[in-house]
Amino acid sequence: MQVNWNDRFATRLEWMTTSAIRDILKCAQTPGLISMAGGWPEAELFPTAQLAEIAQQVLTQSPRDSLQYGLTDGLTVLREQLAKMSTAQGIPAQPENIVITSGTQQSLDLLGRILLNEGDTLLVENPTFLGALQSFKAYGARFRAVPMDDQGAIPEELDGHDAKFYYALPTFQNPTGVTTTLERRKALLERAREQNLVIVEDDPYGVLRFEGQPLPTLAQLAAEEDIARGGSGLPQRVIYCSSFSKILAPGLRLSWIVAPRELTGPLVMAKQGADLHTNALAQSMASEFIRRGWMPAQIERIRETYRVRRQAMLQAIEAYFPSGIYYSRPEGGLFMWVELPGEVETIPLLPKAVEQQVAFVPGKPFYITDAGDSTMRLTFASIQPELIHEGIRRLGGLIKAHLGA
Amino acid sequence: MQVNWNDRFATRLEWMTTSAIRDILKCAQTPGLISMAGGWPEAELFPTAQLAEIAQQVLTQSPRDSLQYGLTDGLTVLREQLAKMSTAQGIPAQPENIVITSGTQQSLDLLGRILLNEGDTLLVENPTFLGALQSFKAYGARFRAVPMDDQGAIPEELDGHDAKFYYALPTFQNPTGVTTTLERRKALLERAREQNLVIVEDDPYGVLRFEGQPLPTLAQLAAEEDIARGGSGLPQRVIYCSSFSKILAPGLRLSWIVAPRELTGPLVMAKQGADLHTNALAQSMASEFIRRGWMPAQIERIRETYRVRRQAMLQAIEAYFPSGIYYSRPEGGLFMWVELPGEVETIPLLPKAVEQQVAFVPGKPFYITDAGDSTMRLTFASIQPELIHEGIRRLGGLIKAHLGA
Repeated sequence: MQVNWNDRFATRLEWMTTSAIRDILKCAQTPGLISMAGGWPEAELFPTAQLAEIAQQVLTQSPRDSLQYGLTDGLTVLREQLAKMSTAQGIPAQPENIVITSGTQQSLDLLGRILLNEGDTLLVENPTFLGALQSFKAYGARFRAVPMDDQGAIPEELDGHDAKFYYALPTFQNPTGVTTTLERRKALLERAREQNLVIVEDDPYGVLRFEGQPLPTLAQLAAEEDIARGGSGLPQRVIYCSSFSKILAPGLRLSWIVAPRELTGPLVMAKQGADLHTNALAQSMASEFIRRGWMPAQIERIRETYRVRRQAMLQAIEAYFPSGIYYSRPEGGLFMWVELPGEVETIPLLPKAVEQQVAFVPGKPFYITDAGDSTMRLTFASIQPELIHEGIRRLGGLIKAHLGA
Repeated sequence: MQVNWNDRFATRLEWMTTSAIRDILKCAQTPGLISMAGGWPEAELFPTAQLAEIAQQVLTQSPRDSLQYGLTDGLTVLREQLAKMSTAQGIPAQPENIVITSGTQQSLDLLGRILLNEGDTLLVENPTFLGALQSFKAYGARFRAVPMDDQGAIPEELDGHDAKFYYALPTFQNPTGVTTTLERRKALLERAREQNLVIVEDDPYGVLRFEGQPLPTLAQLAAEEDIARGGSGLPQRVIYCSSFSKILAPGLRLSWIVAPRELTGPLVMAKQGADLHTNALAQSMASEFIRRGWMPAQIERIRETYRVRRQAMLQAIEAYFPSGIYYSRPEGGLFMWVELPGEVETIPLLPKAVEQQVAFVPGKPFYITDAGDSTMRLTFASIQPELIHEGIRRLGGLIKAHLGA
C-alpha cells in the first residue's frame, strides 16, 4: 500500500508559509547580478582570521565547552557576559534572565510556542519582518496591523485589540529602515501599559548606528521606569531579543532573549524539546570573542562600511531615481525602503530587473494588509559602493522607462 | 500594572515537561562523583585536534560557507555526502531526501510539527527515549506503549491503534541497550505495512557496534523491499533519523533526516520558521571531516573504547550485583539496563547512591506506563574502566544492603 502523506499532515501545515524572500534570493544568486535583495551582512567583514584563531583555542583548550552536551539555557560564561552587556545597555539583567537561542528565528519560535494559542491576535508593524510572521503563523496567530509612518509605529493603533503581544522592531526596522522616535517610543510604552499589553522588542541592528544619536530601546525605557518606581530594572512588560547575526556572523545561528524569570523557565523547557541546546562551539567562540574585547572594533568596522554604502545608495537614488518618490534615510542597519508612484508595481518589475542583472525585494510580502504594491526593500550592506551606484542606475532607468511608457 | 504571565501562556505549556534526566544530571556533576547517569559520549574521544585543524581551514578558505546565512535544508555538499553515506548503508537517497537539522531533538520536533495534531496517537517502545516524548508532547500527542522484551519491540502490539506513526529505536536502544532482532524487524515492518502505519526510525548509535553482526535498519529493510518491487529504494514508510552527536560531537548539534520528498518539503518549511538553518560552521566542519576520510577511524576508536568499557561494566555487575537480576548485554551504543528485584525502588535509591559518590538514572521516567520502579539505566561510554569497576562496586553494595535490610 502506498503512503498518502497528504492524509497525514498536521492542520498547522496549512498555516505555514515559506519565505517569498528566500525564494527570490535563491533565484537572485547568478554571478554578475547586483543583488540588493538579501538581508545579508557583508561577508568581507566577517572576522574570519580572529574566529579561526579563537576556534583553534576553544577547541584545544576547552573542548568540552565546545563539543560536549551543554545546558539548555546556554553556556554559563556567555550568559554572564550577555547579562553584563545588557546591563551596560540599560537593561539590568542577571544571567538567569538570559536564554541563548539558535538565532532570532528560534527566539521568535520559542516565544510563539510558550505564548500562542490558535487564533490569538498579535499586533505587528505593517510592513514587518517576514520571518516573525512565519514563526508566529505556525502557532495559528492572527495579525493586526499597526500602521507606520517615518516616525515609526503609531501608538494609538495599539489600543483595543486584546492582543497576546505586540511584536516591535523599533530600530532600523526590517524592511523599512525606519527608527521609531523617542517620543513615539515613550508613547508606545505608555499605551502598552494602559492596555496591559506585552511587547516583544526585536533589536538585531540597534548597535549598527552610523549616524545620529542613539535612542534608548523600549526595554531600556521600561527599565528606567521600573527603577524610578524602586524596582530592579528588569523590564516586566518588554521581552528583548537580539543577535550575533549582524555583528559577528549569521551562520553561527546565535541569538539571545532577555526576559523575566517567569518566562525564561518556560522558554528553556520549550527549547529543551525544540533542539536541546544551541551549538556549543558557536557559544564558546562568541564568548571568547567578547572576552578578548574584540567586539567594539568589529562593530565599528561594520558601522563604517555600512555608512559609506548607505551614503552611496542615497546619492545614487538622488541621481538616478525619478524625483518625488519616497525613500527612507536609515541611520543604521542594513535596509532602505522605497515607495514608487502607484503605477509601478514592484513584483512584475523584479523579473525585468533581474534581466538587467539587478535585484531587489518587492515590499508587498512584508505587509499583512493588501498594500505595498509599489514598494521595495533595498540593502546596501553587502554591496560595494561602485556596484550600488551601478545597480541603482539600472533600477532607476527601468523605473523611469516604466513611468514613461 | 503588573504583568500576570500565568494568564498569558499557551495551552500547550501544560503538555510540556522538562527532562527528569537533565535535572538529575545537573545534580550529578559534583567532582569526584562517578556518574553512570548521563547519555554523554566520552569527551576524550572528541577529535579535537582534527576539528581545530578543520575549523581553521574552513573559516579561512571558505568563510562564506561557515559564517554566512545558508540554505534551510542544509549545506549542499554535506547533503550530498549524507545521501551517499545513506545509499552505502542500504538506504538509497538523493540529496533532496536529506534535511540537515540542529540535532535529533530538532528532527523529532520538526516531524511533530508537520505531522501531529492535538490528541494524535503515537506508538512508542516502552520504555523509550525521553527526549522524543518531550518533543511530541509539545504537539499534544498521546502515547500507546509497544511493550519490549530482550528481542526488541513486540510486533503484534503495533496492531489496531490508528496511530500517526510508530517511533522506533531498534538498535542499541536508549534506555535499554536492547537491539531488535532481524526476525522482529521484519515482522514490525510487515505489521506496519498491513496497518498502513508509518515508522520514524531513530538511529543515533547504529554504527557504534562493537560486537556481533550488523543488522539492517528498518529503513534498509523497507528499501530492499521497495527495490524488489521495482522501486528506487527510498523507503516510503520509514523516516530515518541519525546524528553526528555520538560519532563526532554532540555540542555541534548536527543531525539529519532521510525522508521522501513529500516530507522534506514540509520539513524544510517548518525548519525555516523554527531556526532558519542549522549552524553553518558545524556543517562545514562535519563535511570536511567526512571529505578527509577521517570518519571510519573515528568511529573505530569510539567502538574500541566503548567495547572495553561495556566489558568492564558487565564484569563488575557480575562480580558486585546480587545474582538473579536482569541486565542487558548491549552489542553497541552507550547504555546498559538493569532490572532489580521489585523491593528495590531506584528513585529513592538515587540520593543514597549520590551520597556514596555514584550516580545512575532511575528507569521509571522512560516509561509511559506506571512501570519501571526497579529499573535503572547505566552508561559505560563516558567512564574509565577503573571507575566503572568502583562505581558498580559501590552500587552493588548499596543494592545488597537494601535487599538485606
